[in-house]
Amino acid sequence: MCRWLAYTGSPVLVHDLLYRPEHSLIVQSLSSTMGAETTNGDGFGLGWYTDLPTPGVIRSTEPAWNDRNLEEISAHIRSPCVLAHVRASSGSAVQQTNCHPFRHGRWLFMHNGSIDGFLTLKYDLAMAVDPVLFAGIEGSSDTEMFFHLALTLGLEEDPVGAVSRAVGLIEETGRRHGVDFPLQMTVGMTDGETFYAFRYSSQGRSRTLFHSADIATLQQQYPGNQMLRRLSEDAKVVVSEPLSDLKGAWREIPESTCLVLHKGQEQMLPFEPQPRLVES
Amino acid sequence: MCRWLAYTGSPVLVHDLLYRPEHSLIVQSLSSTMGAETTNGDGFGLGWYTDLPTPGVIRSTEPAWNDRNLEEISAHIRSPCVLAHVRASSGSAVQQTNCHPFRHGRWLFMHNGSIDGFLTLKYDLAMAVDPVLFAGIEGSSDTEMFFHLALTLGLEEDPVGAVSRAVGLIEETGRRHGVDFPLQMTVGMTDGETFYAFRYSSQGRSRTLFHSADIATLQQQYPGNQMLRRLSEDAKVVVSEPLSDLKGAWREIPESTCLVLHKGQEQMLPFEPQPRLVES
Amino acid sequence: MCRWLAYTGSPVLVHDLLYRPEHSLIVQSLSSTMGAETTNGDGFGLGWYTDLPTPGVIRSTEPAWNDRNLEEISAHIRSPCVLAHVRASSGSAVQQTNCHPFRHGRWLFMHNGSIDGFLTLKYDLAMAVDPVLFAGIEGSSDTEMFFHLALTLGLEEDPVGAVSRAVGLIEETGRRHGVDFPLQMTVGMTDGETFYAFRYSSQGRSRTLFHSADIATLQQQYPGNQMLRRLSEDAKVVVSEPLSDLKGAWREIPESTCLVLHKGQEQMLPFEPQPRLVES
Amino acid sequence: MCRWLAYTGSPVLVHDLLYRPEHSLIVQSLSSTMGAETTNGDGFGLGWYTDLPTPGVIRSTEPAWNDRNLEEISAHIRSPCVLAHVRASSGSAVQQTNCHPFRHGRWLFMHNGSIDGFLTLKYDLAMAVDPVLFAGIEGSSDTEMFFHLALTLGLEEDPVGAVSRAVGLIEETGRRHGVDFPLQMTVGMTDGETFYAFRYSSQGRSRTLFHSADIATLQQQYPGNQMLRRLSEDAKVVVSEPLSDLKGAWREIPESTCLVLHKGQEQMLPFEPQPRLVES
Repeated sequence: MCRWLAYTGSPVLVHDLLYRPEHSLIVQSLSSTMGAETTNGDGFGLGWYTDLPTPGVIRSTEPAWNDRNLEEISAHIRSPCVLAHVRASSGSAVQQTNCHPFRHGRWLFMHNGSIDGFLTLKYDLAMAVDPVLFAGIEGSSDTEMFFHLALTLGLEEDPVGAVSRAVGLIEETGRRHGVDFPLQMTVGMTDGETFYAFRYSSQGRSRTLFHSADIATLQQQYPGNQMLRRLSEDAKVVVSEPLSDLKGAWREIPESTCLVLHKGQEQMLPFEPQPRLVES
Repeated sequence: MCRWLAYTGSPVLVHDLLYRPEHSLIVQSLSSTMGAETTNGDGFGLGWYTDLPTPGVIRSTEPAWNDRNLEEISAHIRSPCVLAHVRASSGSAVQQTNCHPFRHGRWLFMHNGSIDGFLTLKYDLAMAVDPVLFAGIEGSSDTEMFFHLALTLGLEEDPVGAVSRAVGLIEETGRRHGVDFPLQMTVGMTDGETFYAFRYSSQGRSRTLFHSADIATLQQQYPGNQMLRRLSEDAKVVVSEPLSDLKGAWREIPESTCLVLHKGQEQMLPFEPQPRLVES
Repeated sequence: MCRWLAYTGSPVLVHDLLYRPEHSLIVQSLSSTMGAETTNGDGFGLGWYTDLPTPGVIRSTEPAWNDRNLEEISAHIRSPCVLAHVRASSGSAVQQTNCHPFRHGRWLFMHNGSIDGFLTLKYDLAMAVDPVLFAGIEGSSDTEMFFHLALTLGLEEDPVGAVSRAVGLIEETGRRHGVDFPLQMTVGMTDGETFYAFRYSSQGRSRTLFHSADIATLQQQYPGNQMLRRLSEDAKVVVSEPLSDLKGAWREIPESTCLVLHKGQEQMLPFEPQPRLVES
Repeated sequence: MCRWLAYTGSPVLVHDLLYRPEHSLIVQSLSSTMGAETTNGDGFGLGWYTDLPTPGVIRSTEPAWNDRNLEEISAHIRSPCVLAHVRASSGSAVQQTNCHPFRHGRWLFMHNGSIDGFLTLKYDLAMAVDPVLFAGIEGSSDTEMFFHLALTLGLEEDPVGAVSRAVGLIEETGRRHGVDFPLQMTVGMTDGETFYAFRYSSQGRSRTLFHSADIATLQQQYPGNQMLRRLSEDAKVVVSEPLSDLKGAWREIPESTCLVLHKGQEQMLPFEPQPRLVES
């Protein structure tokens, strides 16, 4: 069910981010240690922000560990905000349009987890998507549906609230169909300015999610560490599983939490679904 | 916008069907002469019936002209009912789940044409699909939606009527959104027992569609022709464009027509859309 | 470094062979337990014999665990002699032409292992291939080179001797370039009539290789076992790792051994490389 | 047999180069007008230079006309030296390692044409490649072999001479095997500093090749032309077929010619093969 990584901070070379760490995302595509599956070889995706109006995105069904083009391109991209994802399908087809991150305007969205009983709920969830936005759904994944529900429920104006409402709608729809614990999620989402990480699941047993500790502090703790030295003080990394064993470098994001990163500031907020008001 | 081919009759080797003719479907994938596009390189699909309960289907995004696996496999399949399709996308993603033929139980469905303004109509069309059937939609093509509308409207019990009703619904939905000529189609569809070919479009200017003349007659006309000799007398081929120049071998299927082939018998029926009764 | 499977006996449905066993080759593509790597997701290949003059072969760079076409096709192929292979690249590119089995006329050849220092030896090995056969090399793998050396050294007339001589040549070339232990191999090879399995390595520490015990005996031991009941008495399976935990069902093939299966008879022969005579 | 494009000059956005022109290379991948084939859908490749020590290269077997990743990436690459190629295979497998441009250190090499009777000559040509360089051959194309022969014959020290000698060797080897006209070529080759275009064939009937006229002159001629205004005065484009109909914008490169571009200067030199001295 996937592993992901997000970076914000001063511009970084994407190749360093993806390939250099000891337990990099590329290594995790072949053998993750904390995921539901060891192998996340059902495709990958990379999104990054530059001075262009919208972020660039490449996605492929190739397993990330062997994809030469990914390695080449990442050596040529420097960006202050990067999202990367390696996929282990939870049932839907292996195709480029089912790879994360998904993009809408300036927004990127990626997910580790699933909507339980998705096929049973699919019609009702689809009907809750705004008709104009619905046309933008190209694949068949639960994540893409989730994203489009959040867009429908006001993501561009009120990001955290919209995800809250989308989760509420998914859970309500699930329960209406007899699914006890409809949603499992860690989500990474951004518009290039603010990064949001969510960790929540209906059953309270979400996939792992970590964020990096303060870089300046770590640089003092480990003065010889090359990787740390290359990072800016405002660098922040959020990951499904840590990229290294470095003691003190990683903090777990608790259940039912939303982490908000903006201009080097971070906020940890409690997160809970917001059920829909009953409509006639 | 694609080329397709269907065969019914005594079991034939799929390789002969796909590769031997002078202007074979494989040749048409690279350079068709009557299609909207010359090249139909956005994927291919093959469906075939045996004594198994459901037909086999393989689909790939590779251009058919170079796909070695297709050539290998076709040399090993003998079948009395074969559907094959090469794709030129009318806008939706190039992915395996957007390749034809589409399968549901014993049914196979393929299409050359498009739903005009599909993205605008997509939500309303999706809403009209039965919720349980809706979960089976894996891609993003207009054809797959069309097929699922026909399934919803009774394809398994009343095939021609269901296609009729589906076309009616698509046209009505289109006009409601200001699309004057919503549908363009030649469709090939079968359950392995009866084969249905449809040629219709809202504007009355459909893509080409031909069926083969009586084989026994052709065999007498052309006693030296090797390809003809290998065919059984009940062999019937329906194609987007003729596989050869042989005079008298191909008859055009008229506009607004449904051709029904069953146990060597053929029926040519007028075809028209059946609009929905107004619902509150 | 790959896992493979071979079957000889009465015709079997390929889908049963590939998908039904508890620890099937498809399962092993995602998580093998005895291989050098857990995941063998760098492509797969399938070869099978029918009454056609040469065997059919399909190969793909897709990881086997998710490939729908493989699942579909295997449900439609029945064959008395089947070779299947899932790949973990030992360095060479992930491409269809580097997937096993390799074919030459009626012969199929697959391999688990590697030629150590292959890039250093590549030129000299290539030079030793017959010029006409050399043109048939389409990929860049050590296995394909090995196969073409065996073909050059008389594989079609004296299969075991040719493999012996090829191994001798590879080892001699390796040592000439300072490679101590040039070859690691388990090899599966057949012309559709006789199947040869080899287990040998320069260092005497080869990858695992097993063959199935006598089916009639196993059927008596396990009268309730469905899978066994479906097998003919002359069925024989040779695998990199056992397809099940069934006690007594699998025997390891020793180091430096060649197993020969022909018309239900089996021979276990000592195997050793045959160095080249010195040429001026 | 392929179409290619090269750009040198002030940094340009790759997306503008590939997608904006009326008869762009992307359009030519689907419908070229001057090539041996209309469709060049057997893969593509892109190489570009930045301040990194070696150029970036991405290659894919996808037809260029539909590849989303190519479109995305090209919108994010600005470079003063760009090579792009769309492939129509002349027989060898469709695989990433057979796509152009080929890279060796700082050098990129691409080709439109073929070596006639390549399979017959392959062994002799391979033997003429330096053993260390030989290990770098990953595919099975005639172009890759040609490039490695030129590298062997001194490409990095004497580029034009090396290509000359390589052509001589290929022709001599061809004639030794009864091939009258062994080589057809337009070649584009660079180390990021100097760009070389070659047009030559054994029979004197090479594929088309054009270079752009002086930009400053064209800008005066067509003051309203947007595309021209975006180009720097030292911009130079070399193409298999013109990207537009603009009168006077394109000059054909004659048969048996080598065009050398360096720091805005251009030289047109006669080109002829240089046969090998006879070796015992």
